[in-house]
Order: sequence, then structure tokens, then C-alpha cells
Amino acid sequence: MLLLLRRICSARRVPASLLSGMSGRERLYPHHQRWLHTTTGRSTGNASSSNVFALALGSVALGLGYYVGVYRAIETPPPKPVYGTPEDFAHAIEELKTLFSEGAVVTNDDQLEAHGFSSNAYHPGFPHSVVVYPDSTEDVVKIVNVARKYRMPIVPYSGGTSLEGHFAGWNGGGICIDMSGMDNIIAIHEEDSDLVCQPGVGWTEINETLKEKGIPLFFPLDPGPTATIGGMLSTGCSGTNAVRYGTAKGEWFLNATVVLPSGEVIKTRRRSRKSSAGFDTTKLFIGAEGTLGIVTEVTIRLAPVVPTTVATARFPNMRKASEAVIEIMNTGIGIQCIELVDAAFMRATVAAGNPARKYDIADHLFFKLQGATPGALSESVEVVKKIVRKHGGDRFWPAKTQEEAEAVWTDRKNGLYTGLAYAGEGAKAWTTDVCVPISRLPQLVYETQEDIERSGILYTVVGHAGDGNFHTLLFFKTDEELNTVRGLVHRMVERALALDGTCTGEHGVGIGKKEFLVEELGEGTVGLMKTIKRAIDPLGIMNPGKLYPDDDDVSHP
Amino acid sequence: MLLLLRRICSARRVPASLLSGMSGRERLYPHHQRWLHTTTGRSTGNASSSNVFALALGSVALGLGYYVGVYRAIETPPPKPVYGTPEDFAHAIEELKTLFSEGAVVTNDDQLEAHGFSSNAYHPGFPHSVVVYPDSTEDVVKIVNVARKYRMPIVPYSGGTSLEGHFAGWNGGGICIDMSGMDNIIAIHEEDSDLVCQPGVGWTEINETLKEKGIPLFFPLDPGPTATIGGMLSTGCSGTNAVRYGTAKGEWFLNATVVLPSGEVIKTRRRSRKSSAGFDTTKLFIGAEGTLGIVTEVTIRLAPVVPTTVATARFPNMRKASEAVIEIMNTGIGIQCIELVDAAFMRATVAAGNPARKYDIADHLFFKLQGATPGALSESVEVVKKIVRKHGGDRFWPAKTQEEAEAVWTDRKNGLYTGLAYAGEGAKAWTTDVCVPISRLPQLVYETQEDIERSGILYTVVGHAGDGNFHTLLFFKTDEELNTVRGLVHRMVERALALDGTCTGEHGVGIGKKEFLVEELGEGTVGLMKTIKRAIDPLGIMNPGKLYPDDDDVSHP
Repeated sequence: MLLLLRRICSARRVPASLLSGMSGRERLYPHHQRWLHTTTGRSTGNASSSNVFALALGSVALGLGYYVGVYRAIETPPPKPVYGTPEDFAHAIEELKTLFSEGAVVTNDDQLEAHGFSSNAYHPGFPHSVVVYPDSTEDVVKIVNVARKYRMPIVPYSGGTSLEGHFAGWNGGGICIDMSGMDNIIAIHEEDSDLVCQPGVGWTEINETLKEKGIPLFFPLDPGPTATIGGMLSTGCSGTNAVRYGTAKGEWFLNATVVLPSGEVIKTRRRSRKSSAGFDTTKLFIGAEGTLGIVTEVTIRLAPVVPTTVATARFPNMRKASEAVIEIMNTGIGIQCIELVDAAFMRATVAAGNPARKYDIADHLFFKLQGATPGALSESVEVVKKIVRKHGGDRFWPAKTQEEAEAVWTDRKNGLYTGLAYAGEGAKAWTTDVCVPISRLPQLVYETQEDIERSGILYTVVGHAGDGNFHTLLFFKTDEELNTVRGLVHRMVERALALDGTCTGEHGVGIGKKEFLVEELGEGTVGLMKTIKRAIDPLGIMNPGKLYPDDDDVSHP
Repeated sequence: MLLLLRRICSARRVPASLLSGMSGRERLYPHHQRWLHTTTGRSTGNASSSNVFALALGSVALGLGYYVGVYRAIETPPPKPVYGTPEDFAHAIEELKTLFSEGAVVTNDDQLEAHGFSSNAYHPGFPHSVVVYPDSTEDVVKIVNVARKYRMPIVPYSGGTSLEGHFAGWNGGGICIDMSGMDNIIAIHEEDSDLVCQPGVGWTEINETLKEKGIPLFFPLDPGPTATIGGMLSTGCSGTNAVRYGTAKGEWFLNATVVLPSGEVIKTRRRSRKSSAGFDTTKLFIGAEGTLGIVTEVTIRLAPVVPTTVATARFPNMRKASEAVIEIMNTGIGIQCIELVDAAFMRATVAAGNPARKYDIADHLFFKLQGATPGALSESVEVVKKIVRKHGGDRFWPAKTQEEAEAVWTDRKNGLYTGLAYAGEGAKAWTTDVCVPISRLPQLVYETQEDIERSGILYTVVGHAGDGNFHTLLFFKTDEELNTVRGLVHRMVERALALDGTCTGEHGVGIGKKEFLVEELGEGTVGLMKTIKRAIDPLGIMNPGKLYPDDDDVSHP
């Protein structure tokens, strides 16, 4: 009895000590601790107001249990999400079938497989339990609520162009939401140069539509040609145009309609070009890879179409080419793209047959130059020509016609296909990207080339040089070569991080790069990301296993 | 006894029902509920393993109390932050004095007043309890930990240019962190066109430093001339250059070092120009107005200096001018700024004496045009001239010399001072801004002008027309006029929201605009912002009373 009483007193002291302390736990649940503090008085009253032995014992134990309970509740950290059982998932699928038409809820193996694995990525994946095709934001809300009810993971899918396993199935199954049916352009505001659309529409379709309608505007983010708006936003994409227009993390996504993990629908912002009304929650979903909610509508900003021409130049080496890039970038002339390719890339391009030109097998720069007026365009060409020469470049070839310009640019864009053909029958390509401050690009390229040469793996180098964004295509045929490639990619990332760079410039984290996030960003920043993830998706149903490093011993602010 | 047992069983059923449910509470603390669920079995064992009456009663009551405790802990929502007592604050100040040199911890009334109120804003404010001048990130950590320990609000201050009460003192006092001493440029990377600096340095100083060093780069965000980097980031600022370069919410802040409310120091990103390594936590602090952490270092992106010239044109009315702006923006020529001013603005400019030109008292557009080459620049001038004429504009005056260009631009920049002079002895100005899709700008301007005319308040109109960003300067001398001005500002914001616009294009929310946030963004989006705020700053010590609407009945995802 005395023992019990003493333990109550000690229990009662717990909250006070916690309150003055600075524990990580306190950072997470200070309100519980305060609340605990304020109720201490209350049950003391109960405890002391009794005279009957049994009641005393009862209430003493009651009080003790009460404190232990509250204390345990506070002290228990958020566990890893617990998902439903296979039976729960079966019920979820049944419920989805009652909510959607037959064709919209698919469980045949081919589809589950096709949506769960990527032919462009070599990361672990699993088939989904079901693929659902929503038509509207309301449909997505229904799906999210079913997922909540049965604690079932949701993996969004649209263009399927991910290179890092973003849409891979969750081990244990889940719901794949295929957004490709939500592909409407809802409104075009030419005067405001913006456009409202659904996430399943592709950027190429958007630009073709604008062209057909004779609207002199375009959406400048240019990742893989079959990428769709939803994936582009969620990956924080960019492409060759980023040199001039920046990335998805800039101001191209004016707002997004999002179904949150709670099933609630929000619109992040209005349509005005600028707003300083608080931190921009649109940015929270850009690069979140579907882990914080599902985007069902966006307003994108459009840019005026500006006349361009294309030129190529040969360089003695990557360093000279990079020096030219830096000087050209700082002139302020109209540069839409500067692409750096290596001799191997040119060899593959020539080998593929009918290249637009008689290229040399050497390191090259491909330029896309802008000029709103003919004079400006030709002057830009002259400026670039001078700087190319200054840095030891030669064979500077500006396109004479628009057709020639397009043909030359196609040679650059076909890098993957010409590379695969060059690698021969049965070859596959591992495409990876890192990004470093431009001045560090040559060192990164040289060290990586050396490493690959040693390995004997066939490869080509393609870089968005103006951004310090560097891609390699690593070709392999056997599992043994695949393992060698894995090692090369890993060392390439470590090299980029050592040069104050990032593990991915534009492909995203997915499964493939999450192991590098703590090294790149630090435990505190990754902890902050996880804190936000937990606050928005406490059930952990949104695309689990992607983006966030698995290890849970990162600190939480 | 039976009653007790029955109550335990019912208590035991609580979590299960919660688990299948969809309550808002569950969204916040599902892990607790799951934990409760999984431990049910455990104490059942204890309960059933007893034979002695007293022990049975004890453990039964123990179990009951345990569940009630856990259940209460779960069901208690996060209360409003509880701050320390005046005694706690006094102890905090004592502790700060032991941690910092004498001059760094200031409590004299003038300073507390000067840091707690703005002479440019007319929102409620209170003097701070103490002003502290940190020299380093480590100093800021010390201050944050003292604030945590004594539950004392922290209000960051640097340039002091806020127009919406961002640095106003908290009712009840708090710590004002004056960052103006942390004003070093730490590194300039010309090749990478970026710069590392502390938050207290001003953008004008940065650009002067680059000029002195002969580095042909500049930082293009141009709010008030005395604004500093920390405030610019935290406000999500922009300015006249936003037409060409976008805003602080774009890609000008490559990374930020932040002291979180937990006292932890993070660096949000590396220095590479691009990264798609998850959602960009830098963006979380841009526009957060010091409510999520304190920025102590940033890496900013620089842009090449491009030759410019200036031109002005007279228009019959705002609509014609706006039509011209839309067409000019969509040509893709080098436009750095397009400023729309009204006849009243020109009247004030002329009245002030020695304007750069013999302006007419009429609506005007001021252009700053870019061209990397002389040809491009003169061609841009010709393009603009044609479009101006097409839309009924005349008196198109391009500057003949660089001196003339600068003088004309100064006339535009001096709007506040010429306006105040025109308003006469003892006049004050309320400067406010809203932003709408460009096509809605004329309607917004007309309705607002009508409203102001009716009120008899003296005013001028200045707009960053290329962005649909619209400012009015409302002049007043008496409290009665001040009240009239308040009403005008309120109606102007309501008008902007009705036109799919925002309550603030570049001045931020602070105290002045927070009442409009739910109407602009919706309860869900504001709820999301508050959820993030709570997760990062559970003690609510970071700049309380700013940005987030006061009413707490917004939903939480």
C-alpha cells in the first residue's frame, strides 16, 4: 500500500521533470506533457477524498494506472505504420469494386505486374494488389478513404517513366492509382499565360495542343517525352530547357489540387502569378513523389515561344567544353539548352546511321539558342562562336535551316536509342543522373569516366552542362554486368556528394537514391522531412518505401 | 466490482472502434490508438492472472485507470501554446545576459520600442522584452534554447522594412533576435554564379559588392532598397524585376541554414543548381515569416548582368495599358520590368520637381528592356514601340543615354517619397499590395480607383503590371482618415480574392493580411499549414501571432 502511494507520488513528479527537460520526446508531444501537468492536481483531490479502504486501494491503483497509462502513451514513439492484413486488403478490393465500374478496378496479373515494375529501372519491386482508374478528384477521395479504412498503401502511377522505382509495388501489396485517365486540359488562359489540367496529361500533348490552337505559348519543362504532369510535379523534374527556364521547383506550377492522406481535398494556391501569402504548400508536393498526397489538378504557367536555332561544336576535352559553358552562361544571351556529350555518345550516334551531320568522334557541345528577333538570334550565335573558339572548341556549326536544327537536336535526343543499338542485341541501359556546381563538373566527369573505363562497361555521357547536371547511360547484358553497373552508379553518386552536389538532379529519389539522402542532406533535414511526412500522413499509406531513408534513427525536430 | 469490470471491457473496445473509424482525432494520433490496441492483450493477461481479492480490485482499477489515462492522453487535442510567466521571462533575460556580451542583450525602452513597432505599418504591436544581437548560428541556437526553456516567443528582425507587422512584438513580450549584425558575404562563386551570405546583408550591398569586384553578376530580387536577405527569404519577396526573374519562391535561394524551434541546426540543400532529392525544405522557410525557424545562412543564385535601357509611354487608360503589357510579355523579348502608374502618380512626380522628363499627367507604363547585345536591345525597343502604338499608347520615349535611363527609373522608384511630399506636411502612407491574373488587373484597378475616389482619400497607383501585382499608396493625416484607409485596403483585398487573386503579391501576411488567408486558400490548406507549424514548432515560440489565422476551427489533415 505504502509502496503504491510512493509510486504514485513519483509518477506525479514525472511530468514536471519532463516539462523542464529538453528531451526529443518532449519536442514531439509537449502538449501531452503540459496536459499531464495540469491534471495532476485533479486526481490528487480524488485520491485524498476517500476514507474506505477498498475505495482507497481502488482509486490509488486507479491513479497509478492512470499515470502509467498517460506516461506510456506519451513515451511511446510513433511506431512504423501498421498495414492491414491480406484479408483487410481483400475487403478493400471488394469495396472498391462496389464503388467503381468494372473496368476501373483491375486485378489481372499482367496489369498488376506492368504497374508494379518498370522496364527502365532495376530496383526491387512487387506487384500491386489492385489497379484503380479514377476519373475525378472525387474518385481519388473514395480510393484514399478505402485505403485509410483498410490501412492499405497507395502508389500513384501515370506516365510510368520513372527511372528510380517511384511506382514500384509495396512488399505486401497495395492500391495502384493509375491517373492516366485523368488527362484533360481543363482551361487555357492565353492572356494570363497559364493552363489548368489534370495530372495524367503529358507535357508534349500540352505543347502540341497549344501549337494546334495557334497559341504562341509552351510549357518549358521537358523530361522524358512520355512523362505526364502529375509525375513531373511529384518528381521535381526538369530537362534540357532548365538552363533557361529552371525546374519544376521554380514557379511553373502555380497551384495544385491535392487529395491529402486524410481524404481531404485542398487547393494549394490561387491562379495569380505571384503570392507571398505564407509558405507555398504547392512546393510541399513538388518532389514529394506521391508520399504526401495525390495531385488531381494543377495550374501551370506557360512561357512565350521564342525563335531558336541549334549549333554544335567539337572540343578537345570535357574541361575545355565546361569552361566555355560557364562563360557562355554568364553572358546573359538567349541560351535555351547547352548539352555536353562525350566521344562515345557521338560514336553511337554516327554508328546508328543517318546522323544529321558528319560528326567527329569527339566530345561535343550541342546548343539551342534563343532570339526573339532575327538580329538577336544571329548575334547570340556570333557570341557563342567567339567563346567556343576562345576555349579551344572548333567545327562550330550553326544550323542553316529550321529543318537542319530539328534534325541535329533529334540526334541529341535519341541518345538512349542510339546507345542501345550501339551496345548491341539484348543490351539494357541503366540511366542515372547527379548534379554538382558547374565548376565541379569536369572533375566529376573525368573521375567517373576513368572508373567506368576500368570496369569495361560500355557507356555514354550526356550532361545538361549549363546546370552541372550529368547523366551516364551504362549498358549491360548479364546480371554480372548489372552488378558492376550498380557499383559504378553508387560511386558516381558518392563522387557528386563529395563535390557539394546532389544524388539526383532530375530523376528523383524513389527507391534507387534514398540510401544517399542522409549523407546528402544531413540527419536534421531528413528528420524534418520525416516529421512533415508523419504529420500529414500519420498512417503512412502514401507510397511507402519511397523517398525517405528506411533507417529510423534520424533526429526529429 | 462488476461495474468496474464491465467498464474495463468497454474501455478495451474503444481503440478498436477508433481504429476502424475516420475521426479527425484519429488522423492526428493513430499510432497511439494502434499502440493502445496492441497492448490490450497484455494487461488482460495481468488481469486474469490474479486470485486475491485486493489484488484483483487493485489490478482491475489499475487497468481501468491505465486505459482512461491513455485514452485521455490520445483524446486531448494540442492546446494553444502556453508561454512562460513574467518571472520566467525575467529569468530568460538574466540567462541571456550570462550567455552574451553586455552590448548584445538590450532592454532599454527605445530599442524595445524601435524593434517592436514599424513606422511603415499600422497594425497592433507591442514592445519586445529584450533584443538580442547574435553573431553566429551558434548564438542563435543559444537564444532558441533559452526561449524553449522559458517558453518565450522569438521574433526575428533584420532590415525592418516589413509593411505588415512581421516583427511586431508579441502581446506579453518576447525575445527579438536582431540579425542585422550577421551581415557577412561568406563566399562568392563566380563560375557557379552563386553566393553564400548571412541573413543580415542587404541585396543592394550584395550587388554593390559584386560591381566593385568587377563580377558581371547580380541578385535580381529587388524589394525595398534596405531589405535584407533573411527578411526577403522569409517574406517570399519580389519586386520590379519579378517579370523577368520571378520571385523568392523560385530558384534564387539554393539552400538555407536554419535553426529549428527544437534548437537543431539544419542545412536544407547542397549548392548544386538543381536537385530532385525529395521536396525542397528550403521552400518551407520561404514565406514562413520566421514561424518555422530562424535562417542563419543562405546560398543565393546570381544572374548575369544584361545591358538594359528604359522607356516610358502614355496611355489613354489602364485597360489599354494592360492590353499592351499582355502582348509585350508574350513576345518573349527581353523585358526586365513593366511598371504601371496612374495619373496621380505622375502628378506627384511632376509636383516633386525636377522629374527626368516633361511627363504628362496621365496613366503611364515604365519599361526596363534587356538585350545582351546592342542589336537585341534596339530591336526590343522597336518591338515594344509597335505594340504600345497598337494599343493606343503614345509619347513612347526610349532613353537616349544610360544617365537618362537611370534618371527616369529613379522617378518610378521615388513613388513613395514624391507621393508623401504631394500629400503634404504630416501625411503618412499606407502601402498595400494584392496580385491577380494579369487579365483581371484592369477591373481590379478601376473598381479600386472608384472606391478610393468616393472616399476622398489621396492616393497613387503603382503596379508591377507584368505580374498582375498592384500597389496603392493611400495617404492620410488623421485617425479618421486612417480608418477610412483601413476600409479601402480591406475592400481592395476582397476584390482581388474575387478575381482569383491573392491578398498579397509580395509584402507578406504578417499581422495585416492573416484575416484573409482562410478565404483565399480554404480551411484545408490553412489547416495543412497549421499542421506543419505544430509539427515543427510544437511549443509555438516562433513569431507567434503572425501569418496563421487566429481562429482555430480550421480542419487538420
